[in-house]
Amino acid sequence: MRAVDIIRKKRDAGELTRGEISFFVDGVTHSRIPDYQTAALLMAIVWRGMSRGELACLTQAMIESGAALDWSELPAPKVDKHSTGGVGDKTSLVIAPIVAAAGLYVPMISGRGLGHTGGTLDKLESIPGFRVNLHLDEFRAVLAATRCAMIGQTPEIAPADKKLYALRDVTATVESPYLITASIMSKKLAEGIDALVLDVKTGDGAFLKKQEEAEALADLLVETGTRTGKKVVALITGMDEPLGRKIGNALEVEECLEVLHDRGPADLRELCIDLSAWMLALGGRTKSVNEGRELAAEMIASGRARDTFREVIRLQGGNPRVVDDPEILPKARHFTEIIAERAGFIEKIQTERMGIASMILGGGRETHEDDVDPAVGLEVHKRLGDPVKEGEALCTVHYNLDTRFAQAHPLLATCFEIGPEPPPRLPLVRKIIGATGIS
Amino acid sequence: MRAVDIIRKKRDAGELTRGEISFFVDGVTHSRIPDYQTAALLMAIVWRGMSRGELACLTQAMIESGAALDWSELPAPKVDKHSTGGVGDKTSLVIAPIVAAAGLYVPMISGRGLGHTGGTLDKLESIPGFRVNLHLDEFRAVLAATRCAMIGQTPEIAPADKKLYALRDVTATVESPYLITASIMSKKLAEGIDALVLDVKTGDGAFLKKQEEAEALADLLVETGTRTGKKVVALITGMDEPLGRKIGNALEVEECLEVLHDRGPADLRELCIDLSAWMLALGGRTKSVNEGRELAAEMIASGRARDTFREVIRLQGGNPRVVDDPEILPKARHFTEIIAERAGFIEKIQTERMGIASMILGGGRETHEDDVDPAVGLEVHKRLGDPVKEGEALCTVHYNLDTRFAQAHPLLATCFEIGPEPPPRLPLVRKIIGATGIS
Repeated sequence: MRAVDIIRKKRDAGELTRGEISFFVDGVTHSRIPDYQTAALLMAIVWRGMSRGELACLTQAMIESGAALDWSELPAPKVDKHSTGGVGDKTSLVIAPIVAAAGLYVPMISGRGLGHTGGTLDKLESIPGFRVNLHLDEFRAVLAATRCAMIGQTPEIAPADKKLYALRDVTATVESPYLITASIMSKKLAEGIDALVLDVKTGDGAFLKKQEEAEALADLLVETGTRTGKKVVALITGMDEPLGRKIGNALEVEECLEVLHDRGPADLRELCIDLSAWMLALGGRTKSVNEGRELAAEMIASGRARDTFREVIRLQGGNPRVVDDPEILPKARHFTEIIAERAGFIEKIQTERMGIASMILGGGRETHEDDVDPAVGLEVHKRLGDPVKEGEALCTVHYNLDTRFAQAHPLLATCFEIGPEPPPRLPLVRKIIGATGIS
Repeated sequence: MRAVDIIRKKRDAGELTRGEISFFVDGVTHSRIPDYQTAALLMAIVWRGMSRGELACLTQAMIESGAALDWSELPAPKVDKHSTGGVGDKTSLVIAPIVAAAGLYVPMISGRGLGHTGGTLDKLESIPGFRVNLHLDEFRAVLAATRCAMIGQTPEIAPADKKLYALRDVTATVESPYLITASIMSKKLAEGIDALVLDVKTGDGAFLKKQEEAEALADLLVETGTRTGKKVVALITGMDEPLGRKIGNALEVEECLEVLHDRGPADLRELCIDLSAWMLALGGRTKSVNEGRELAAEMIASGRARDTFREVIRLQGGNPRVVDDPEILPKARHFTEIIAERAGFIEKIQTERMGIASMILGGGRETHEDDVDPAVGLEVHKRLGDPVKEGEALCTVHYNLDTRFAQAHPLLATCFEIGPEPPPRLPLVRKIIGATGIS
């Protein structure tokens, strides 16, 4: 078998066999296939796409490039959630403790922020002392003790994905729904979970702006997961405004704690409960999603989710007092408000722009190598459809460096579009894909 | 400027600017852009194609990656011919001496054979002592003395093409008419010629099987050359049977000498005179192509083309006696005939298969690294439409190794398809593209 023949076959819209896909993924993993051939194949896949069968083979080969975790000693189902990313998208920190408190295991392996979107690991690291780079045996110990652990990518899991992702990033081959699916699903399925809930974002603040694109990706994700025998559902959720009111690492942890204290913004709370409910239902903890919602709300109200989160933080090296005293979180030195220049209704929020502004303040990464500043970010006071008076505060900017604020200001000044009428309201959960028979 | 942004732009069907193309070609030439990014861009070009403007910029940037030759001290126009390659396609060795004898300069830089097609350099090297790897100053000296010199690629000319070609070869990005055009034209235009005649082959023995594909490529080649101010014409010529009767390096030299001795197969002679005539007309040596045909025929009949070839061979280190005594050429040890199994007419010749059979005998290269055996090859006795009796010889196989003959035999046994009727005859020159106003 020769790599060039496999590239040619895909270039000519042929369907690759399981053997050809394994040969390639194995060659990438063990550096037997040079990067230039991999790059050419990746671009050919961006061009020609993949059949469902090819995609399942690619995902499987990527899982098998490393170790798949095995939690068979743990006495309850293992579930996880993955989000395609958005602005203010912070649900993991709420959901994982809820679902673990309710009795399922959540072995969550997350990523870092890039561009306009944040990442769970960066948020967790704003908690003083919190360690996300646990060894697998530490991960196992935390999980066994609290039913929940939250770590970063390990070298053992899907090493082919690491190599492929690094190459996709520099060859403009990131934006293929097939490659995105294989990347997400290989990492998540290697976690050794029984069920997965996907939060596929759509709208200005999401990677996929159009709902059709989000639905097409969700469809691939669900089918690929289902083909490997897992229970998978995808919720298509709106990202036309930030989720919740806070953007930035410590600010988002603070807001998650508000929700765990049975307060916090309604949209964030609703989505956390919905996603938790699907995890509980798919994991067999509740008979229906509705029952899952009730159980999730109970885990918040009773304080049991908070207790779980406190214990996870403690076992992962963080200061557990943060749960009850968010003042421990890092704070920015400066605050300033962005003011409405005229009255009306918030007609549109340039959500991606807001995410980029937060990144420029230091809250995110322009490239993988950048460091983040945990303290900076935005606090949004007005939501889509809210009435606004001239001179009213639209959002508060938390920043440390004047130069960064100066750079972000032109973006922030144009994030909120004010018109004479409120825009039509759309539901946060737009569509549910997969998990037929469960409701 | 970042390579990844240029790749993304082409991936999304954008039109690259001159600056972006120069940045990339320069980066490739000086190894500043890694091969994986180049490979991704090449595949994106295979996918999206290029505008005429982009193609002209790419060709120009590839020319400027090295030294463009300057023959301004030579007192007559410089012309050349390029063929896209076929089986038995040996016209260069006849044409270059004819056109030089008639008074124009022919600074010919050629390639080697690959796959089912032969290469001028391999043919020339079957002449004992002939050196194709001249330094540029030797090339200049031979050209000044005889008005004709025939050498291989030099490191000075279009180095970007060398790097790109090597990468295309292993990334399945050879077969793009845009990349083919930039590769051919950058090398040919860097020769410092005033006019170029292109022989674009179509049919079973050509790279482009369909005439529409050949015409589309010819169109790109002609427009790209014309945009740089050169006189360019393309002849679309048939490759549904071998050109002439001999295939294989020494055998083809022998047949070229037959033509230069005013003998040889009619089709080969006709095409050599046609191509020479176009070179003479575009180079301003004759007022019309018809006058060019007369002059070319006269150069053969008078022996002046032979004299020129003899002198070129002598100056390039070869044994000039070969022109009058082809017995000097290497001979194969074994001969055998392929016999017609039934009577009828030659309805179809599997020309590519015949080229592959010759390659297997040792006459060509499967990969760039292979050596060729100058002596082996095929002598075709029956042409398309010829009547054939059962038991009659279809071709003679010249070979040195029994193992290779055994491997080639199944292909040779199925090259000639015999039917009840002769197929319709097509003209050898199917179409002329470019050179408006010249006839």
